[in-house]
Parts: sequence; structure tokens; C-alpha cells
Amino acid sequence: MAEITKVALDAMGGDNAPAEIVKGAVDALSREKSLYLFLVGREDAVKSELSKYDYDKERLEIVPASEVIEMAEPPVNAIRRKKDSSIVVGMKLVREGKADAFVSAGSTGAVLVGGQVIVGRIKGVERPPLAPLFPTENGVSLLIDCGANVDARPSHLVQFAKMGSIYMEHVVGVKDPKVGIVNIGAEEEKGNALVKETFPLLKAEKSIHFIGSVEARDIPRGTADVIVCEAFAGNIILKLFEGVGKTLISEVKKGMMSSFRSKIGALLVKPALKSTLKKFDTAEYGGAPLLGLNGLVVKTHGSSKAKEISNTIVQCVTFKKQKINEKIRESIQAEAAAEE
Amino acid sequence: MAEITKVALDAMGGDNAPAEIVKGAVDALSREKSLYLFLVGREDAVKSELSKYDYDKERLEIVPASEVIEMAEPPVNAIRRKKDSSIVVGMKLVREGKADAFVSAGSTGAVLVGGQVIVGRIKGVERPPLAPLFPTENGVSLLIDCGANVDARPSHLVQFAKMGSIYMEHVVGVKDPKVGIVNIGAEEEKGNALVKETFPLLKAEKSIHFIGSVEARDIPRGTADVIVCEAFAGNIILKLFEGVGKTLISEVKKGMMSSFRSKIGALLVKPALKSTLKKFDTAEYGGAPLLGLNGLVVKTHGSSKAKEISNTIVQCVTFKKQKINEKIRESIQAEAAAEE
Repeated sequence: MAEITKVALDAMGGDNAPAEIVKGAVDALSREKSLYLFLVGREDAVKSELSKYDYDKERLEIVPASEVIEMAEPPVNAIRRKKDSSIVVGMKLVREGKADAFVSAGSTGAVLVGGQVIVGRIKGVERPPLAPLFPTENGVSLLIDCGANVDARPSHLVQFAKMGSIYMEHVVGVKDPKVGIVNIGAEEEKGNALVKETFPLLKAEKSIHFIGSVEARDIPRGTADVIVCEAFAGNIILKLFEGVGKTLISEVKKGMMSSFRSKIGALLVKPALKSTLKKFDTAEYGGAPLLGLNGLVVKTHGSSKAKEISNTIVQCVTFKKQKINEKIRESIQAEAAAEE
Repeated sequence: MAEITKVALDAMGGDNAPAEIVKGAVDALSREKSLYLFLVGREDAVKSELSKYDYDKERLEIVPASEVIEMAEPPVNAIRRKKDSSIVVGMKLVREGKADAFVSAGSTGAVLVGGQVIVGRIKGVERPPLAPLFPTENGVSLLIDCGANVDARPSHLVQFAKMGSIYMEHVVGVKDPKVGIVNIGAEEEKGNALVKETFPLLKAEKSIHFIGSVEARDIPRGTADVIVCEAFAGNIILKLFEGVGKTLISEVKKGMMSSFRSKIGALLVKPALKSTLKKFDTAEYGGAPLLGLNGLVVKTHGSSKAKEISNTIVQCVTFKKQKINEKIRESIQAEAAAEE
């Protein structure tokens, strides 16, 4: 019998909770037989949503949590005070070993803080990075770090590169993933102080496949599989990527609706365009893992619908099967041993 | 009679020099009667291009320069050694007051170094920012700084905000331009060390219309007219903007060509899409000024064609007519006086 992966789900997190979260959970249960789910949240609300579906009741359990952390709450305070929130209760399941993973579409800040404070870091990991996948011309790349802790040190970036490589190779299935550092020019001597200090460290790191600097204009082309950067830059890249995409697509649509002739054309190109744009739909790729913790924590988009939730839950199974955290632990401890 | 604006043009800079540069120069001369041009470069090459056109010979002069600074040359060395390059000779015309402005599609690094070393900074300006305009849903925004000097200080960013506001108001014609600082969240307490230090300074600055933090996802929507950031972030934003746009447009085109039905549709939507995409064509907006120098220096895209060169030259006339440098000088000196 296959090993069971136990995933705790924040049933109250995100714009479409609990309806889409519950729907996604039910969908994941039917897709993946080795899955056991904890739905963490307000019992009545979750029950009422669940009553709409037929699902394997032996593999799903409701864990009551009476509070909800709102998007706008200061995260440190929220984690400290709302002990009975779905995020705190769900993360405790991971800390206590009852769940392998926690998935939330709720407040990014609270998930990041909770991950560090409740789930805790793997020994040796200096800073757990948030690492979303995003679509490129070649498939997907991992952007690491997009978290909330900015002003990183070079040693952080080296760990990001190692953890990101392990994730891309064993969860996404990219053999010998290419690692690039975000820079403002291709030459080694370019960059800000952080990049200049980090570059030689990455170059010397034998466990990764470092290809040097990646300019922002090459990121969408998929030049590197693992894109290393400090979180301020990572946030800019991720959000600008979404913003430019949204603006361009809406302008293209507006353009198509501007004349009778183009409206007819739009009807004809629509099916073909739909599949193109689907490639650039981040929901296809599931949530962003917060790596380097004693358990898996995944943040999905606040606007997540059932599909993204379901895809993210299924990712957790691969994460466990591939023993990602054991691999990260070994990699980080090898580093510590080498330094002694 | 209108005041004459004298523009020195790097006839040898960029991928399409000298043909497109000369063509753009001739075009600008016919558009703008108060213009006098110096074409700086290899005399025979420039003459041979000029011989193709009819133009007002009394308002155009060739200034010989035998050398060319290549794109890949280390800029500081190139400016120091190639005394007879089109960039060095052209910038000297500005320093000596013979020209009001210098326009180049050549090496960005050399233009930035030459601007500081040869043309020189306005007294009180700590760091001259490179400030390209880019298209948004609302029109255009100015992204300041995208230069080569990274790791800026808060006082630099405050000057960028002031110079950018002057440019947007008087050259682009946006009344009371909104200034935002690039950040990873809307709240005042968010950001890296630089942003946190700069935020209250911008808030206290009475000569600008500061609206607070701007998240990268809102940049394409045109939320702010002047987007202030340090050059590492600015370079990422500018290049990712171009990269995502290019990738999406090429994928949309590929999608349209994927079936017979969609090909017919593509023919019908083409004219409408063309005008939409034109809005996102950076060539429409001319080059990026390097602000805060004793004269105007403008860098255009390396791939510039005649249209961008011509638009950029015409911008220089507005820059002079609006006395932008006088306004910058006053604004910076008011700051110095206030500090005393």
C-alpha cells in the first residue's frame, strides 16, 4: 500500500473560502488515493460546503478552528493572538507530525510568520524562502525568494539556490536544473553589493548547476530553471509579471472588440488564444512552497479557486514521496560539515 | 523668432547606425524648425547617408569623430581612451555650450559615464538618474532610476522624485504628477531598509505629490506618474516589462497561427491589434533622459530606428523650451538652502 500523505488545509483562507477550498479538497481526494485531508476552519461552514459533495469520508476530517486571520492584519500579532485561527491550528498539526503539509490561500504574511514560528526551520536553514513557480516560454521556472524577509545576505542566497534546485529536480522533474542569479547585466562584475558577493559563492558551489547572471528580460524566456534573488527583487518580479500580463491581455481583448471586423476575428481566434493564455495562468502550477521548514507549507494565491487548491494538494504528495525535506536537510548539513 | 535648440547626435551609436540615425535626424529637422543638429561620427559614412535626403543644410553640420565605442567595451575605459569617439566628441559639444543636448543609441554604460565625467552634474545633484518613460493603461509613467549606479541612498531617491516630477510636469505635460515609491506592499512599514528610510523623507517633501508605495503589479496600470526606485530595481522593472511583453505577444501570435480557423481570425483582428500594440511600443515615447546634468543627455534604445531618433530629438526642444535644467537647479538649490 502506498504511503499516506496527510495535508492540512486552511479552509478559511483566501477570497473564495470556504467554498472553493472545500471543492478543491474534494477534487484532490478523488484524484489522489494516497491522500488524507484535514479541513481546518469553522465547523458549520465547512460542513455545509462538504454536504454538497460525495467524497471518501474515511480520508477527510474536519479540525475545528473558530478564528480567521484577515488579509490586512499585522502577521506577527495575528499569529501570536489568534491561537484558534485556521492558520495556527493547521500549522500545529504539521509541527506535531499529524500532518505532512499545510496549504493556505490566506494572508501571505501570516503564513510566512507562522511557518517560521510554529512549524520551525530545518536545522541549518538560515531563512526559509517562498518559491513560486511561474510560466515561461520553456515551461516553468522557480523564483526564489519572494517572501517577506528582505535585505538577504549572500549565505541566504546560496541556500536558496540549493533548496530551489532540489525542488525543481525532484518535484517539478527538471533534470540538473540551471540556476541563475537576477542581475542587471550578464557580466560577472556587474550588480549591486549583494549580487557581487553572492556570485563567486554560487560559482564555487558544486551541488548546483550555476549558469551565472540572468537579466530580467530573459526571465520570461526560461533561461534558468531556478532564479535566485533577494525577496524585494523577487516580489517585484513576481508581481510585475502578473501585472504586465494582465494589462497586455486586457488591452489585446479591448483591441479585438474595437471594430465589427475585429469582433468577428476574435470569435475565430478565441479557442486558440485560450489555450495559449492558459499556459500563462499561474493557477495551473499550484501554490508556492515555503522551503526549509520541518514540514511543507504552501501558499496559494489569495484568489485561488478549486483547481489551484487541488493542484497544490497533489503537489504535496510528490513533495513527500520525493523526500524533499530529507534532501534539503542533507544538502544543508553537508554545507555545515564542509565549513567545520 | 523662436529660440534655437542645438542637438548633438551620436551618428555611430546603436544597431542601426548610421543609416537610421541620419534618417531620424533629417526627419526631426523637417518637423521642428527651431532645431539645429550636429551629426557626430565618421564623416564619409555620415555624408554618404545624408546624400540620400533633401534637408535644410543650414541647420545641420557634420562634426567628425573617427572612433566608435562598442557596446561591450568597459565604459570607464572607453570614455577615457577613445577621445575621438562620437560619444566623447558629442558630449564635449554640450559641455562647451555649443549644443544643448546629446542623443545616443550607443552603449548605455558609456553614455552614463560620459554624462557624469564630461557633461558634469548640476551643482547639488548627488547622482544623475536615467529615467525612461514606459507605456501604461493610463498613458506613460517615468521610471527613475534605471541607470548603472546601484545601491542608492535615501537622499538620492528624494532627488530622483523631484527631478522626475519636474520632467513629467513640464516635458510630458502631466499636471501635478503623482509620485510613488516601488515597494512590496502598500503599508508604510513595509519594504527594505532603503525604502523604509526614504518613505518619510518623500512624505515630508512639499514640492512633490507623493502618493506612497506602489506595488509592482500596479505599475502597468499607471497608478503613479513618477515611479521612484533604486537602479537595480529599476533595471529589473524596465527589462522585465519588455521581456514579458515580448513573450506574451509572441505567444499570442503563435496561438493565432495554430489552426486554419484562427489564422482567418488573425487576419481580421490584425489592424485592431496593431494599434493596441503600438501603444506598448517603447519607440513611440522617445529616449530616456539622464537628468541632473549641465545639459541634456538622452539615451535611446540600441535598436532605435529613425522614428525613435526623431521623436527623441523633438523632445530635446521641449526640454530646452521648458527650461527643465533651470527648474532642476532651483529645486535642488532650494533643498540645499533649506538644509542650511
